[in-house]
Amino acid sequence: MPAGPVPAELVEFLRLPHPAVIASLRPGGAPHTVATWYDWDDGEVLVNMDASRLRLGFMRRDPRVALTVLENGNWYRHVSLLGSVSRVDPDPELVDIDRLARRYTGSPFRNRSAERWSARIEVESWHAWDGSGPWVHP
Amino acid sequence: MPAGPVPAELVEFLRLPHPAVIASLRPGGAPHTVATWYDWDDGEVLVNMDASRLRLGFMRRDPRVALTVLENGNWYRHVSLLGSVSRVDPDPELVDIDRLARRYTGSPFRNRSAERWSARIEVESWHAWDGSGPWVHP
Repeated sequence: MPAGPVPAELVEFLRLPHPAVIASLRPGGAPHTVATWYDWDDGEVLVNMDASRLRLGFMRRDPRVALTVLENGNWYRHVSLLGSVSRVDPDPELVDIDRLARRYTGSPFRNRSAERWSARIEVESWHAWDGSGPWVHP
Repeated sequence: MPAGPVPAELVEFLRLPHPAVIASLRPGGAPHTVATWYDWDDGEVLVNMDASRLRLGFMRRDPRVALTVLENGNWYRHVSLLGSVSRVDPDPELVDIDRLARRYTGSPFRNRSAERWSARIEVESWHAWDGSGPWVHP
């Protein structure tokens, strides 16, 4: 898995609102996965969670995560990012979740009384696949 | 996350060839994710990998995995399965990969000289989401 900066071609892909699945680590170290909105945020990945989400606690306990982003409508092209949560911040004004909701749905987040938290993921390595073989080489 | 048998409504969903992402554990315990074909196999999940795939070694080292299955065309409905690889077997006649290829593409697997391996995943717990809230309750 190539380390270092994500190539421009993959950044272009990640800027689009594709479906994604994030893995975090449960207490004891077993993996936990769930679908998620994300955005590419100037070299990091932004995700946002309701305060009640289990993975918020998982990420605070162990920041190591992985994210696989599937091309919308053609999931045989996909990009995976391995890294660590560098920051977990409250989102009291719903700025980050609104940004994600607008990106994916065109509208602000519906639940205005939600307690939301943002996590920023620093990418350490990546791999990319395009149907029959590796998509982008380092 | 509910433990125990996957409810019939979710089994019905899992029987369809939806996109999926599997998480395994790298040496050291960090999560690794990648898109995958899968099939529901009489209470277990079947996945199949080329001999060269990193995650084959990861699963042999630590059998704990997680799989998130996204509804085809509506990824806001998704099911996640947490569990362990109970068996890793060679697939010398390409029986399992043909089954998966037929399920997803309608045709047998193209590369007849591939060295393939199958893993069976025993499901220990699950969660299911349907856009705005939990989909199926235990």
